[in-house]
Amino acid sequence: MARIRWVGFDGDDTLWKSEDYYRQAEADFEAILGTYVDLADARTHQHLLDVERRNLKIFGYGVKGMTLSMLETAIQLTDERISARDLHRVIEIGRNTLLHPVDLLPGIREAVERIAADHEIVLITKGDLFHQEAKIAQSGLADLFHRIEVVSEKDEPTYARVLRELEVEPSRFAMVGNSLRSDIEPVLGLGGWGIHMPYHVTWALEAEHGVAHDAPRLRVVENAGQLSDALATIESVPDA
Amino acid sequence: MARIRWVGFDGDDTLWKSEDYYRQAEADFEAILGTYVDLADARTHQHLLDVERRNLKIFGYGVKGMTLSMLETAIQLTDERISARDLHRVIEIGRNTLLHPVDLLPGIREAVERIAADHEIVLITKGDLFHQEAKIAQSGLADLFHRIEVVSEKDEPTYARVLRELEVEPSRFAMVGNSLRSDIEPVLGLGGWGIHMPYHVTWALEAEHGVAHDAPRLRVVENAGQLSDALATIESVPDA
Repeated sequence: MARIRWVGFDGDDTLWKSEDYYRQAEADFEAILGTYVDLADARTHQHLLDVERRNLKIFGYGVKGMTLSMLETAIQLTDERISARDLHRVIEIGRNTLLHPVDLLPGIREAVERIAADHEIVLITKGDLFHQEAKIAQSGLADLFHRIEVVSEKDEPTYARVLRELEVEPSRFAMVGNSLRSDIEPVLGLGGWGIHMPYHVTWALEAEHGVAHDAPRLRVVENAGQLSDALATIESVPDA
Repeated sequence: MARIRWVGFDGDDTLWKSEDYYRQAEADFEAILGTYVDLADARTHQHLLDVERRNLKIFGYGVKGMTLSMLETAIQLTDERISARDLHRVIEIGRNTLLHPVDLLPGIREAVERIAADHEIVLITKGDLFHQEAKIAQSGLADLFHRIEVVSEKDEPTYARVLRELEVEPSRFAMVGNSLRSDIEPVLGLGGWGIHMPYHVTWALEAEHGVAHDAPRLRVVENAGQLSDALATIESVPDA
């Protein structure tokens, strides 16, 4: 019997592109803001991050919260000089970000199918429930997963709850994801395994983590084609 | 063995007050809008409903979507004349609505405890994941529930999935809620039981339903104190 019973997959920037669309939204936002304030001023970008960080506690993750934070930032940084027309354009940025196409990352469908052939697999994704469900549906991957969990925060208590519902010991669970902070650190903390597949961009607020690059239950892959082999190296570790 | 194994409870306006806070938000919003447009014009209110209905498909339910819809409505109805300062006040309305206190409805804790004593109970609530989780935590009721499901839409497929995960037949499931559209109709449609506990206000978009007032597997109660007896009348129906 294989060591790993359940394999978890993150959604955004693991199965499909996401952060690129947020970056595009930010660029579009700054183009509007640039007609009012000096974008070369480092405080402009920092202000948005500060507003987002403060609003996360009230709004949670996701495009709608980002849009409200952008509106607030624009109003504050322009000393309320920004026009209603331009604020409407900011709302449109949010709407377009919610409607972005779901592009699977290269080789991801094959990798997920291969792992699903001899493991139970669960999609564990963070953010806005409505938007995540829409992306899952559009991805065409929903049927491959035995369970789908959209959660508001990916921390140890959340993974502990999900693993309890799956009735799996952490030592028999491996999580695949691009975020050391959200996908890897809490799972290692519970005694599970992590397979880190970095994405080329990481949101500033996701970059804070405390994972050692040589943590014993951590594997790192460069692309989806390497996932299956990484899982095999975990399976081949003798029981402690 | 009792006929009903699992009892589901809705959250908003079943366990705790919710719609009142949305109504307050709408009144605050119209007070701002009233300095720009004629509120006596019935189109003002209708425009907000129309924008909300259209945006629901993109934003989903919840306060953040409502706030974005209010901003959009305000910009459109004022022909872009509204000031950034006033739009910021609309964002504040949204923030305050997200931070409203969680007030349990009268007798609800006792009613839930009584039913939990001899049934498994599940909270099935619709809306924004982050806000719903915050309300569940503040309600102090979380520990009473054996499962908690935050869903993006309360329709037949959603209830079918939840019941499958709970491994319960619809005929052994009863749902308690204030919305005929979201809590009762889809459960009756699956062959389950509904206990309708009306709330004094209903959102216009929740008022559309097709439940007959004398549907055989429907019970109606006036308050939480009657829930236990209503469930007993369901338990006493002989098997078909």
